[in-house]
Amino acid sequence: MERLDGLGAVGQHARERLRFLAYAHELTSVGRFVRLVDGSRPENSAEHSWHVGLCAIVLAPSAAPAVNLERVLKMLAVHDLVEIEVGDVPIYDKSARAAVAELERAAATEVFNRLPEGRQLHEVWIEFDALDTQEARFARAVDRLQPILLHWIGGGRLWRSAGIRRQQLDEISQFIHELCPELAALAQAIINDAADRGDFPEDHFQ
Amino acid sequence: MERLDGLGAVGQHARERLRFLAYAHELTSVGRFVRLVDGSRPENSAEHSWHVGLCAIVLAPSAAPAVNLERVLKMLAVHDLVEIEVGDVPIYDKSARAAVAELERAAATEVFNRLPEGRQLHEVWIEFDALDTQEARFARAVDRLQPILLHWIGGGRLWRSAGIRRQQLDEISQFIHELCPELAALAQAIINDAADRGDFPEDHFQ
Repeated sequence: MERLDGLGAVGQHARERLRFLAYAHELTSVGRFVRLVDGSRPENSAEHSWHVGLCAIVLAPSAAPAVNLERVLKMLAVHDLVEIEVGDVPIYDKSARAAVAELERAAATEVFNRLPEGRQLHEVWIEFDALDTQEARFARAVDRLQPILLHWIGGGRLWRSAGIRRQQLDEISQFIHELCPELAALAQAIINDAADRGDFPEDHFQ
Repeated sequence: MERLDGLGAVGQHARERLRFLAYAHELTSVGRFVRLVDGSRPENSAEHSWHVGLCAIVLAPSAAPAVNLERVLKMLAVHDLVEIEVGDVPIYDKSARAAVAELERAAATEVFNRLPEGRQLHEVWIEFDALDTQEARFARAVDRLQPILLHWIGGGRLWRSAGIRRQQLDEISQFIHELCPELAALAQAIINDAADRGDFPEDHFQ
Protein backbone atom coordinates (compact mmCIF):
# COMPACT_ATOMS: atom_id res chain seq x y z
CA MET A 1 0.00 0.00 0.00
CA GLU A 2 2.92 2.31 0.74
CA ARG A 3 3.66 2.32 -2.96
CA LEU A 4 0.63 4.54 -3.51
CA ASP A 5 2.52 7.42 -1.93
CA GLY A 6 4.91 7.25 -4.86
CA LEU A 7 2.22 7.81 -7.45
CA GLY A 8 3.26 11.39 -7.96
CA ALA A 9 1.64 11.99 -11.33
CA VAL A 10 -1.89 12.02 -9.95
CA GLY A 11 -3.29 14.19 -7.18
CA GLN A 12 -3.56 13.37 -3.49
CA HIS A 13 -7.29 12.70 -3.67
CA ALA A 14 -6.92 10.33 -6.60
CA ARG A 15 -4.20 8.41 -4.72
CA GLU A 16 -6.43 8.15 -1.66
CA ARG A 17 -9.30 6.83 -3.77
CA LEU A 18 -7.06 4.12 -5.24
CA ARG A 19 -5.78 3.29 -1.77
CA PHE A 20 -9.36 2.97 -0.51
CA LEU A 21 -10.31 0.70 -3.41
CA ALA A 22 -7.29 -1.51 -2.76
CA TYR A 23 -8.21 -1.68 0.93
CA ALA A 24 -11.87 -2.45 0.13
CA HIS A 25 -10.79 -5.45 -1.97
CA GLU A 26 -9.89 -7.20 1.30
CA LEU A 27 -13.62 -7.93 1.61
CA THR A 28 -12.82 -10.91 -0.65
CA SER A 29 -11.14 -12.50 2.38
CA VAL A 30 -14.06 -12.15 4.81
CA GLY A 31 -15.81 -15.53 4.98
CA ARG A 32 -19.52 -15.91 5.65
CA PHE A 33 -21.59 -18.68 7.24
CA VAL A 34 -23.44 -19.65 4.06
CA ARG A 35 -21.60 -21.72 1.45
CA LEU A 36 -21.61 -21.72 -2.34
CA VAL A 37 -24.54 -23.59 -3.87
CA ASP A 38 -22.30 -26.63 -4.52
CA GLY A 39 -21.18 -26.58 -0.86
CA SER A 40 -17.51 -26.41 -1.85
CA ARG A 41 -16.52 -23.42 0.32
CA PRO A 42 -18.00 -20.50 2.28
CA GLU A 43 -19.23 -17.53 0.31
CA ASN A 44 -17.22 -14.40 1.03
CA SER A 45 -18.59 -10.93 1.65
CA ALA A 46 -17.40 -9.51 -1.67
CA GLU A 47 -19.31 -12.19 -3.59
CA HIS A 48 -22.32 -11.62 -1.34
CA SER A 49 -22.14 -7.87 -1.96
CA TRP A 50 -22.28 -8.44 -5.72
CA HIS A 51 -25.06 -11.01 -5.54
CA VAL A 52 -27.34 -8.91 -3.32
CA GLY A 53 -26.92 -6.06 -5.80
CA LEU A 54 -27.97 -8.37 -8.63
CA CYS A 55 -30.90 -9.61 -6.50
CA ALA A 56 -31.98 -6.00 -5.99
CA ILE A 57 -31.80 -5.28 -9.73
CA VAL A 58 -33.84 -8.38 -10.58
CA LEU A 59 -36.40 -8.13 -7.76
CA ALA A 60 -36.98 -4.36 -7.50
CA PRO A 61 -39.34 -4.00 -10.51
CA SER A 62 -41.86 -6.40 -8.97
CA ALA A 63 -41.13 -6.03 -5.23
CA ALA A 64 -40.27 -2.34 -4.82
CA PRO A 65 -40.82 -0.46 -8.09
CA ALA A 66 -40.71 2.99 -6.45
CA VAL A 67 -37.24 2.73 -4.88
CA ASN A 68 -34.28 4.77 -6.07
CA LEU A 69 -32.26 1.82 -7.35
CA GLU A 70 -29.02 3.81 -7.61
CA ARG A 71 -29.22 4.52 -3.88
CA VAL A 72 -30.03 0.85 -3.15
CA LEU A 73 -27.08 -0.35 -5.23
CA LYS A 74 -24.71 2.06 -3.50
CA MET A 75 -25.91 0.79 -0.11
CA LEU A 76 -25.42 -2.83 -1.06
CA ALA A 77 -21.98 -2.18 -2.55
CA VAL A 78 -20.68 -0.67 0.70
CA HIS A 79 -22.87 -2.27 3.39
CA ASP A 80 -20.38 -4.97 4.38
CA LEU A 81 -17.11 -3.01 4.13
CA VAL A 82 -17.08 -2.72 7.94
CA GLU A 83 -16.56 -6.50 8.04
CA ILE A 84 -12.97 -5.95 6.94
CA GLU A 85 -12.53 -4.55 10.45
CA VAL A 86 -14.97 -6.62 12.55
CA GLY A 87 -15.67 -9.76 10.50
CA ASP A 88 -19.00 -11.31 9.55
CA VAL A 89 -21.35 -12.35 12.35
CA PRO A 90 -24.09 -14.80 11.26
CA ILE A 91 -27.69 -13.61 11.64
CA TYR A 92 -28.46 -16.77 13.63
CA ASP A 93 -26.25 -15.66 16.53
CA LYS A 94 -28.51 -12.95 17.97
CA SER A 95 -26.39 -11.96 20.97
CA ALA A 96 -23.21 -11.70 18.89
CA ARG A 97 -25.12 -9.65 16.28
CA ALA A 98 -26.26 -7.21 18.97
CA ALA A 99 -22.75 -6.98 20.40
CA VAL A 100 -21.15 -6.22 17.03
CA ALA A 101 -23.60 -3.49 15.98
CA GLU A 102 -21.74 -0.69 17.80
CA LEU A 103 -18.40 -2.00 16.61
CA GLU A 104 -19.70 -1.86 13.05
CA ARG A 105 -20.78 1.77 13.49
CA ALA A 106 -17.36 2.72 14.79
CA ALA A 107 -15.73 0.78 11.95
CA ALA A 108 -17.87 2.61 9.40
CA THR A 109 -16.49 5.94 10.61
CA GLU A 110 -12.96 4.61 10.27
CA VAL A 111 -13.51 2.95 6.88
CA PHE A 112 -15.14 5.91 5.14
CA ASN A 113 -12.68 8.37 6.65
CA ARG A 114 -10.13 6.76 4.34
CA LEU A 115 -11.86 8.33 1.36
CA PRO A 116 -11.64 12.06 0.43
CA GLU A 117 -15.41 12.30 -0.22
CA GLY A 118 -16.14 9.50 2.23
CA ARG A 119 -18.86 11.40 4.05
CA GLN A 120 -21.38 10.74 1.26
CA LEU A 121 -20.76 6.99 1.33
CA HIS A 122 -20.76 7.01 5.12
CA GLU A 123 -24.23 8.58 4.96
CA VAL A 124 -25.32 5.81 2.60
CA TRP A 125 -24.06 3.24 5.12
CA ILE A 126 -25.81 5.02 8.02
CA GLU A 127 -29.05 5.10 6.00
CA PHE A 128 -28.81 1.33 5.45
CA ASP A 129 -28.16 0.84 9.17
CA ALA A 130 -31.03 3.10 10.33
CA LEU A 131 -33.78 1.64 8.07
CA ASP A 132 -35.59 4.98 7.88
CA THR A 133 -36.02 5.09 4.09
CA GLN A 134 -37.72 2.77 1.63
CA GLU A 135 -34.36 2.27 -0.09
CA ALA A 136 -32.75 1.09 3.15
CA ARG A 137 -35.68 -1.20 3.95
CA PHE A 138 -35.64 -2.81 0.51
CA ALA A 139 -31.85 -3.18 0.51
CA ARG A 140 -31.88 -4.80 3.95
CA ALA A 141 -34.73 -7.11 2.97
CA VAL A 142 -32.71 -8.31 -0.04
CA ASP A 143 -29.68 -8.71 2.23
CA ARG A 144 -31.73 -11.05 4.44
CA LEU A 145 -33.39 -12.96 1.60
CA GLN A 146 -30.22 -13.74 -0.36
CA PRO A 147 -28.61 -16.16 2.14
CA ILE A 148 -31.95 -17.92 2.65
CA LEU A 149 -32.05 -18.51 -1.10
CA LEU A 150 -28.48 -19.86 -1.09
CA HIS A 151 -29.00 -22.14 1.91
CA TRP A 152 -32.14 -23.53 0.33
CA ILE A 153 -30.74 -24.01 -3.20
CA GLY A 154 -27.74 -25.70 -1.59
CA GLY A 155 -30.09 -28.31 -0.12
CA GLY A 156 -30.24 -26.95 3.44
CA ARG A 157 -27.05 -28.83 4.42
CA LEU A 158 -25.81 -26.04 6.66
CA TRP A 159 -29.17 -25.47 8.34
CA ARG A 160 -29.21 -29.15 9.25
CA SER A 161 -25.58 -29.46 10.35
CA ALA A 162 -25.75 -26.28 12.46
CA GLY A 163 -29.07 -27.25 14.02
CA ILE A 164 -30.88 -24.14 12.81
CA ARG A 165 -34.58 -24.23 13.77
CA ARG A 166 -37.51 -23.22 11.64
CA GLN A 167 -38.48 -20.62 14.20
CA GLN A 168 -35.19 -18.79 13.56
CA LEU A 169 -36.02 -18.62 9.85
CA ASP A 170 -39.58 -17.53 10.59
CA GLU A 171 -38.21 -14.65 12.68
CA ILE A 172 -36.02 -13.54 9.78
CA SER A 173 -39.00 -13.85 7.45
CA GLN A 174 -41.05 -11.70 9.84
CA PHE A 175 -38.29 -9.08 9.82
CA ILE A 176 -38.27 -9.14 6.01
CA HIS A 177 -42.06 -8.74 6.10
CA GLU A 178 -41.73 -5.55 8.14
CA LEU A 179 -39.31 -4.23 5.52
CA CYS A 180 -40.83 -5.47 2.26
CA PRO A 181 -43.88 -7.79 2.25
CA GLU A 182 -43.31 -8.82 -1.38
CA LEU A 183 -39.88 -10.25 -0.54
CA ALA A 184 -41.24 -11.86 2.63
CA ALA A 185 -43.63 -13.88 0.46
CA LEU A 186 -40.63 -15.33 -1.37
CA ALA A 187 -38.77 -16.00 1.89
CA GLN A 188 -41.78 -17.69 3.46
CA ALA A 189 -42.39 -19.93 0.44
CA ILE A 190 -38.74 -21.02 0.57
CA ILE A 191 -38.85 -21.66 4.33
CA ASN A 192 -42.06 -23.67 4.02
CA ASP A 193 -40.55 -25.80 1.30
CA ALA A 194 -37.34 -26.26 3.31
CA ALA A 195 -39.38 -27.41 6.31
CA ASP A 196 -41.37 -29.82 4.12
CA ARG A 197 -38.21 -31.49 2.86
CA GLY A 198 -36.79 -31.79 6.39
CA ASP A 199 -34.18 -29.04 6.59
CA PHE A 200 -34.96 -28.34 10.27
CA PRO A 201 -34.75 -31.76 11.97
CA GLU A 202 -33.99 -30.15 15.35
CA ASP A 203 -37.60 -29.00 15.44
CA HIS A 204 -38.57 -32.59 16.23
CA PHE A 205 -36.46 -32.68 19.40
CA GLN A 206 -37.73 -29.56 21.12
CA MET B 1 -32.53 -26.32 -9.08
CA GLU B 2 -35.43 -28.66 -9.80
CA ARG B 3 -36.70 -27.88 -6.33
CA LEU B 4 -37.75 -24.44 -7.54
CA ASP B 5 -40.57 -26.05 -9.52
CA GLY B 6 -42.10 -27.13 -6.22
CA LEU B 7 -42.34 -23.58 -4.89
CA GLY B 8 -46.06 -23.44 -5.49
CA ALA B 9 -46.94 -20.56 -3.19
CA VAL B 10 -45.33 -17.93 -5.41
CA GLY B 11 -46.00 -17.23 -9.07
CA GLN B 12 -44.16 -18.58 -12.09
CA HIS B 13 -42.28 -15.33 -12.71
CA ALA B 14 -41.11 -15.14 -9.10
CA ARG B 15 -39.84 -18.73 -9.30
CA GLU B 16 -37.98 -17.95 -12.52
CA ARG B 17 -36.37 -14.90 -10.93
CA LEU B 18 -35.14 -17.00 -8.00
CA ARG B 19 -33.90 -19.67 -10.41
CA PHE B 20 -32.00 -17.01 -12.38
CA LEU B 21 -30.43 -15.61 -9.20
CA ALA B 22 -29.34 -19.07 -8.11
CA TYR B 23 -27.85 -19.69 -11.56
CA ALA B 24 -26.09 -16.32 -11.55
CA HIS B 25 -24.37 -17.19 -8.27
CA GLU B 26 -22.22 -19.66 -10.25
CA LEU B 27 -20.16 -16.61 -11.27
CA THR B 28 -18.40 -17.18 -7.92
CA SER B 29 -16.74 -20.21 -9.54
CA VAL B 30 -15.34 -18.42 -12.60
CA GLY B 31 -11.67 -17.73 -11.96
CA ARG B 32 -9.81 -14.77 -13.42
CA PHE B 33 -6.17 -14.17 -14.35
CA VAL B 34 -5.53 -11.55 -11.67
CA ARG B 35 -5.04 -12.70 -8.08
CA LEU B 36 -6.09 -11.25 -4.73
CA VAL B 37 -3.81 -8.49 -3.47
CA ASP B 38 -2.06 -10.97 -1.14
CA GLY B 39 -1.48 -13.35 -4.06
CA SER B 40 -3.22 -16.22 -2.26
CA ARG B 41 -5.64 -17.22 -5.04
CA PRO B 42 -7.18 -15.94 -8.29
CA GLU B 43 -9.95 -13.37 -8.01
CA ASN B 44 -13.27 -14.70 -9.29
CA SER B 45 -15.70 -12.89 -11.54
CA ALA B 46 -18.31 -12.36 -8.80
CA GLU B 47 -15.76 -10.55 -6.62
CA HIS B 48 -14.58 -8.58 -9.65
CA SER B 49 -18.18 -7.62 -10.48
CA TRP B 50 -18.64 -6.21 -6.99
CA HIS B 51 -15.32 -4.40 -6.94
CA VAL B 52 -15.77 -2.72 -10.32
CA GLY B 53 -19.15 -1.46 -9.07
CA LEU B 54 -17.48 0.01 -6.00
CA CYS B 55 -14.75 1.52 -8.21
CA ALA B 56 -17.46 3.16 -10.33
CA ILE B 57 -19.19 4.59 -7.25
CA VAL B 58 -15.93 5.99 -5.89
CA LEU B 59 -14.47 7.27 -9.17
CA ALA B 60 -17.56 8.58 -11.00
CA PRO B 61 -17.87 11.92 -9.12
CA SER B 62 -14.40 13.01 -10.26
CA ALA B 63 -13.97 11.04 -13.50
CA ALA B 64 -17.46 10.98 -15.04
CA PRO B 65 -19.84 13.17 -12.99
CA ALA B 66 -22.51 13.28 -15.74
CA VAL B 67 -23.08 9.51 -16.07
CA ASN B 68 -26.30 7.80 -14.98
CA LEU B 69 -24.71 5.79 -12.19
CA GLU B 70 -27.70 3.46 -11.81
CA ARG B 71 -27.25 2.40 -15.43
CA VAL B 72 -23.49 1.98 -14.91
CA LEU B 73 -24.03 -0.17 -11.81
CA LYS B 74 -26.55 -2.37 -13.61
CA MET B 75 -24.06 -2.90 -16.44
CA LEU B 76 -21.26 -3.82 -14.09
CA ALA B 77 -23.48 -6.19 -12.07
CA VAL B 78 -24.39 -8.22 -15.17
CA HIS B 79 -21.45 -7.66 -17.53
CA ASP B 80 -19.65 -10.91 -16.70
CA LEU B 81 -22.62 -13.28 -16.33
CA VAL B 82 -21.84 -14.68 -19.78
CA GLU B 83 -18.62 -16.07 -18.29
CA ILE B 84 -20.69 -18.74 -16.55
CA GLU B 85 -21.13 -20.13 -20.08
CA VAL B 86 -17.84 -19.24 -21.80
CA GLY B 87 -15.35 -18.59 -18.96
CA ASP B 88 -13.05 -15.61 -18.46
CA VAL B 89 -10.52 -14.82 -21.18
CA PRO B 90 -7.66 -12.54 -20.04
CA ILE B 91 -7.33 -9.19 -21.80
CA TYR B 92 -3.69 -10.02 -22.58
CA ASP B 93 -4.68 -12.82 -24.95
CA LYS B 94 -5.89 -10.71 -27.86
CA SER B 95 -6.70 -13.51 -30.31
CA ALA B 96 -8.64 -15.50 -27.70
CA ARG B 97 -10.51 -12.33 -26.71
CA ALA B 98 -11.54 -11.73 -30.32
CA ALA B 99 -12.60 -15.37 -30.70
CA VAL B 100 -14.76 -15.33 -27.59
CA ALA B 101 -16.64 -12.09 -28.38
CA GLU B 102 -19.29 -13.77 -30.55
CA LEU B 103 -19.64 -16.64 -28.08
CA GLU B 104 -20.29 -14.08 -25.35
CA ARG B 105 -23.02 -12.42 -27.41
CA ALA B 106 -24.75 -15.75 -27.97
CA ALA B 107 -24.35 -16.59 -24.28
CA ALA B 108 -25.93 -13.25 -23.32
CA THR B 109 -29.07 -14.16 -25.27
CA GLU B 110 -29.23 -17.49 -23.49
CA VAL B 111 -28.47 -16.11 -20.03
CA PHE B 112 -31.00 -13.29 -20.06
CA ASN B 113 -33.69 -15.48 -21.65
CA ARG B 114 -33.79 -17.27 -18.31
CA LEU B 115 -35.39 -14.20 -16.74
CA PRO B 116 -39.03 -13.13 -17.27
CA GLU B 117 -38.10 -9.48 -17.83
CA GLY B 118 -34.66 -10.43 -19.13
CA ARG B 119 -34.90 -8.24 -22.21
CA GLN B 120 -34.18 -5.09 -20.19
CA LEU B 121 -31.02 -6.56 -18.64
CA HIS B 122 -30.01 -8.00 -22.00
CA GLU B 123 -30.23 -4.47 -23.41
CA VAL B 124 -28.02 -3.26 -20.57
CA TRP B 125 -25.48 -5.96 -21.48
CA ILE B 126 -25.66 -5.06 -25.20
CA GLU B 127 -25.13 -1.39 -24.34
CA PHE B 128 -22.00 -2.29 -22.34
CA ASP B 129 -20.76 -4.40 -25.27
CA ALA B 130 -21.45 -1.74 -27.93
CA LEU B 131 -19.79 1.23 -26.15
CA ASP B 132 -22.17 3.71 -27.74
CA THR B 133 -23.16 5.57 -24.55
CA GLN B 134 -21.15 7.50 -21.96
CA GLU B 135 -22.38 5.00 -19.34
CA ALA B 136 -21.00 2.05 -21.30
CA ARG B 137 -17.70 3.83 -21.95
CA PHE B 138 -17.21 4.73 -18.29
CA ALA B 139 -18.23 1.25 -17.11
CA ARG B 140 -15.84 -0.44 -19.54
CA ALA B 141 -13.03 1.94 -18.58
CA VAL B 142 -13.50 1.00 -14.92
CA ASP B 143 -13.60 -2.67 -15.93
CA ARG B 144 -10.17 -2.23 -17.56
CA LEU B 145 -8.65 -0.13 -14.77
CA GLN B 146 -9.64 -2.40 -11.88
CA PRO B 147 -7.35 -5.37 -12.71
CA ILE B 148 -4.44 -3.00 -13.41
CA LEU B 149 -4.92 -1.61 -9.90
CA LEU B 150 -4.97 -5.13 -8.42
CA HIS B 151 -1.92 -6.35 -10.36
CA TRP B 152 -0.02 -3.27 -9.28
CA ILE B 153 -1.05 -3.29 -5.61
CA GLY B 154 -0.16 -6.99 -5.56
CA GLY B 155 3.41 -6.10 -6.51
CA GLY B 156 3.23 -6.98 -10.19
CA ARG B 157 4.05 -10.65 -9.48
CA LEU B 158 1.73 -11.93 -12.18
CA TRP B 159 2.87 -9.43 -14.79
CA ARG B 160 6.43 -10.62 -14.21
CA SER B 161 5.73 -14.36 -14.06
CA ALA B 162 3.52 -14.25 -17.18
CA GLY B 163 6.00 -12.10 -19.10
CA ILE B 164 3.54 -9.29 -19.72
CA ARG B 165 5.17 -6.38 -21.54
CA ARG B 166 4.74 -2.71 -20.85
CA GLN B 167 3.45 -2.20 -24.36
CA GLN B 168 0.48 -4.45 -23.59
CA LEU B 169 -0.40 -2.25 -20.63
CA ASP B 170 0.11 0.90 -22.66
CA GLU B 171 -2.39 -0.43 -25.23
CA ILE B 172 -4.96 -1.02 -22.48
CA SER B 173 -4.26 2.43 -21.12
CA GLN B 174 -4.79 3.87 -24.61
CA PHE B 175 -8.13 2.05 -24.85
CA ILE B 176 -9.13 3.47 -21.46
CA HIS B 177 -8.11 6.90 -22.73
CA GLU B 178 -10.52 6.60 -25.65
CA LEU B 179 -13.28 5.75 -23.18
CA CYS B 180 -12.53 8.04 -20.25
CA PRO B 181 -9.37 10.22 -20.19
CA GLU B 182 -9.66 10.85 -16.44
CA LEU B 183 -9.35 7.14 -15.68
CA ALA B 184 -6.57 6.76 -18.24
CA ALA B 185 -4.51 9.24 -16.23
CA LEU B 186 -4.77 6.90 -13.22
CA ALA B 187 -3.95 3.84 -15.34
CA GLN B 188 -0.93 5.54 -16.91
CA ALA B 189 0.44 6.69 -13.56
CA ILE B 190 0.16 3.12 -12.26
CA ILE B 191 1.81 1.64 -15.37
CA ASN B 192 4.65 4.15 -15.20
CA ASP B 193 5.27 3.32 -11.58
CA ALA B 194 5.10 -0.41 -12.30
CA ALA B 195 7.68 0.00 -15.08
CA ASP B 196 9.92 2.03 -12.76
CA ARG B 197 9.95 -0.71 -10.15
CA GLY B 198 10.69 -3.39 -12.77
CA ASP B 199 7.37 -5.15 -13.27
CA PHE B 200 8.04 -5.68 -17.01
CA PRO B 201 11.48 -7.33 -17.16
CA GLU B 202 10.70 -8.91 -20.54
CA ASP B 203 10.99 -5.46 -22.06
CA HIS B 204 14.74 -5.73 -21.64
CA PHE B 205 14.94 -8.83 -23.81
CA GLN B 206 13.06 -7.63 -26.87
